[in-house]
Amino acid sequence: MGAGAQSLKLYESVAERLKDAIAAGTLRPGERLPSVRQLSARERVSVSTVLQAYVQLESQGLIETRPQSGHYVRERVRLRLAEPPVSRPPVSATPVTVSDLVSHLYRASREPHIVQLGTAWPAPELLPTRRLSRELGQLAREQQAEGVMYDLPAGSKLLRQQLAKRSLEWGCALGADDFITTNGASEAVHLCLSLVAAARSGDTIAIESPAYYGTLLAIESLGLKALEIPCHPRHGMELDALESALERRRVAAVLVVPSFSNPVGSCMPEDNRRRLVELVTAHDVPLIEDDIYGDLHFGPERPRPCKAFDTRGLVMLCGSFSKTIAPGFRVGFVAPGRFRERMELLKFTQTVASPLLTHAAVARFLESGGYDRHLRGLRRNLASQVEHVAHAVAEHFPQGTRVALPSGGLLLWVQLPPSVDAHALNARALEAGISIAPGSIFSARPDSYRNFIRLSCGQPWTPRIEDAVATLGRMASGLMTTAPRR
Amino acid sequence: MGAGAQSLKLYESVAERLKDAIAAGTLRPGERLPSVRQLSARERVSVSTVLQAYVQLESQGLIETRPQSGHYVRERVRLRLAEPPVSRPPVSATPVTVSDLVSHLYRASREPHIVQLGTAWPAPELLPTRRLSRELGQLAREQQAEGVMYDLPAGSKLLRQQLAKRSLEWGCALGADDFITTNGASEAVHLCLSLVAAARSGDTIAIESPAYYGTLLAIESLGLKALEIPCHPRHGMELDALESALERRRVAAVLVVPSFSNPVGSCMPEDNRRRLVELVTAHDVPLIEDDIYGDLHFGPERPRPCKAFDTRGLVMLCGSFSKTIAPGFRVGFVAPGRFRERMELLKFTQTVASPLLTHAAVARFLESGGYDRHLRGLRRNLASQVEHVAHAVAEHFPQGTRVALPSGGLLLWVQLPPSVDAHALNARALEAGISIAPGSIFSARPDSYRNFIRLSCGQPWTPRIEDAVATLGRMASGLMTTAPRR
Repeated sequence: MGAGAQSLKLYESVAERLKDAIAAGTLRPGERLPSVRQLSARERVSVSTVLQAYVQLESQGLIETRPQSGHYVRERVRLRLAEPPVSRPPVSATPVTVSDLVSHLYRASREPHIVQLGTAWPAPELLPTRRLSRELGQLAREQQAEGVMYDLPAGSKLLRQQLAKRSLEWGCALGADDFITTNGASEAVHLCLSLVAAARSGDTIAIESPAYYGTLLAIESLGLKALEIPCHPRHGMELDALESALERRRVAAVLVVPSFSNPVGSCMPEDNRRRLVELVTAHDVPLIEDDIYGDLHFGPERPRPCKAFDTRGLVMLCGSFSKTIAPGFRVGFVAPGRFRERMELLKFTQTVASPLLTHAAVARFLESGGYDRHLRGLRRNLASQVEHVAHAVAEHFPQGTRVALPSGGLLLWVQLPPSVDAHALNARALEAGISIAPGSIFSARPDSYRNFIRLSCGQPWTPRIEDAVATLGRMASGLMTTAPRR
Repeated sequence: MGAGAQSLKLYESVAERLKDAIAAGTLRPGERLPSVRQLSARERVSVSTVLQAYVQLESQGLIETRPQSGHYVRERVRLRLAEPPVSRPPVSATPVTVSDLVSHLYRASREPHIVQLGTAWPAPELLPTRRLSRELGQLAREQQAEGVMYDLPAGSKLLRQQLAKRSLEWGCALGADDFITTNGASEAVHLCLSLVAAARSGDTIAIESPAYYGTLLAIESLGLKALEIPCHPRHGMELDALESALERRRVAAVLVVPSFSNPVGSCMPEDNRRRLVELVTAHDVPLIEDDIYGDLHFGPERPRPCKAFDTRGLVMLCGSFSKTIAPGFRVGFVAPGRFRERMELLKFTQTVASPLLTHAAVARFLESGGYDRHLRGLRRNLASQVEHVAHAVAEHFPQGTRVALPSGGLLLWVQLPPSVDAHALNARALEAGISIAPGSIFSARPDSYRNFIRLSCGQPWTPRIEDAVATLGRMASGLMTTAPRR
């Protein structure tokens, strides 16, 4: 379940308020929490209610009890592990060839006996399945005739209206007609790349390094080249590097995941977003913004998409509800700015229109306010799961392992010591029933990121997951050569 | 409703059996029906029941009463109108540029005040909306967790199993794993073209002339060229012309709609299908077969797809349920033969996977036998509607108009006298609240088929539709220049 705050017990509400304060940074790592008696007075609840709340927070790994001293916000993992350095991809553009590891990864995701640390989605028990099922059932009854007929290529009006409403919170103020709904963010990004490819304004796409393999596959299948730009582990694409690339060569588009990128989890600071938009505007290059993880911020504020700084309609903003409520409903969108007309025709050409009913079900969920309530719970769960996995990595992985703790999303990008080959680790892990994503699938060059893995934190933290992370750590240690390369 | 035979009155059953006999050719145009008394005895029903059945058939335009003589199967329209000649497209390949007429056409399709003769889909009242809504609602309740999660790229197992079962009737004997489900046939065809484009084995696609504009748009957006092959109005692509084209140049793929093509409605004879497969096999060129209308045959036998004659896995068979039960559910498929692995990766790349629930709802409808029952009714309705429109064209359009009566589907391709400009007709028709599809959007060259229009017969025959066809005829007459060109 995990959704909504409708039926919270008293101690759970107290715990939630504390979690919010921790997530917002009001209570900081290492800081002492109020005493049980203080909090009981402040919250006007019984001492035992406060105790229950503290027990829950401790079980979730958010606070710790120090004997004879009190309760403390647990130190965040970044204090114990160094973060990976800025990535240094090659400076030339590469025809993309991502190996068939991707197919294997995806296939493993359906095996119930495999521990799922390989795929980038939340477990179904974290999703509002019952609510969506109800909305869909109701719509199927109410809109029998509309539901079976073709929608316009732009898709569900109700959904586009809800997106327009939400865009105010993003700082974008888009209208319903600025959106085209899609079969998930994958289709949205693929449409943007198709549009760019069809425009024949160049064949090179500047992307983050490392980058999501699905995007690399799309670039490959459209006959485009990927120019990988160095990335900071927490701030994303390095704009100086991008700028010099834009000056050096013709680039058909820049593609970024500014909020909680896949696989790194980096979040581009707002100033950088503004500068990025200025850069592409100066070079008149479209910016494809994949904002699929934007709603999954652990801090109090949703990062504003680059689209918020777009004055020329050059930013094509892509998003979806696949990471937050229903991957399988395939509900996404693109706000293509000045490319709207061509995009609509392209959408028609590729799939005519998105299916109405599943899209309308998501729209109704948004309309009811259920989405925001659900998001609050989901973000808290994911933040705690990410911390758990990171803690376990810090505890069980060999010395020299590096991690940058993300401030949103559900992914952890782990740099292993240089001598550990992630392919070998992947093979052994699969034999042991554990699925991970090896680093090399996140680059157009198969020899990149050979000592990196991406761990998914989408599963609720259980002893089974903890064991799997510990097993991975042992395997990684076993794979270290005696004299590690530097 | 139009679906199923569950609740038929007695006279309706009698009428249906007669319709089947007419559709099957057992009762032929101009033939005398049994007398009321004979049929009453044979069917063991009352005389008044037979009379009711005859009244219904007459109101549907299938039979006519000749005073003092009896009831006769109405002459089919082909006896009164000549059919268009074989098409003669230019012999060179063309970069595709289909005008934005397509967007206008699509937009008009949503205006309730417009008479819909422009779009190629059946009216919702002909579709099993209630049944599908029930299946979808039930699935939403039963598969809450599965329904929100990503499916594998190949899509709903249940649907693929049902497709495998049906493929036996097509003469193909495919397995569930031979299929990949898609967002309608559009996505299927687009995937095939993407695959061919990515393989870089050439940039020319040999297609029918005229051809469906959506396919032309897909060819255009992928940077491919269309080589239009002459087509016979009833038998489809001229294979001698195709053969010499294949000998003359490198062709990346051949794309055909062998059963009830769009816009022409032609149906390729089985011998031609066999020869077509032999031809592409000899030249090692993939054949993209768009079989979207295959289930809508008016005769007793479903035409076997070209795939049935494929021994080398060169045929990529595409289909959907958009023209038969639920356009808006976006449920289609491709059986990509030897290209299966690449196709699955491409499907993943473009949309990850199709949404599970809508696809599973269609699968359950197939499983229950409801689809076959529904198809029988739908085919009968469409056959009657096509005849009605054709009769009205024969009656109201200017002399020199030509029509080839299709043996399936829901489209009528009308050749106007040479001096009538279909664009002008289209503009006037829209002003009068009638949507049609002008011929030029069905060719890569905008000056082709300027005196052709495509009429949709997807709407139940009503005085409103009849008036619209009559109005079109008057407008066409008005547009004829005094000295018609030859």
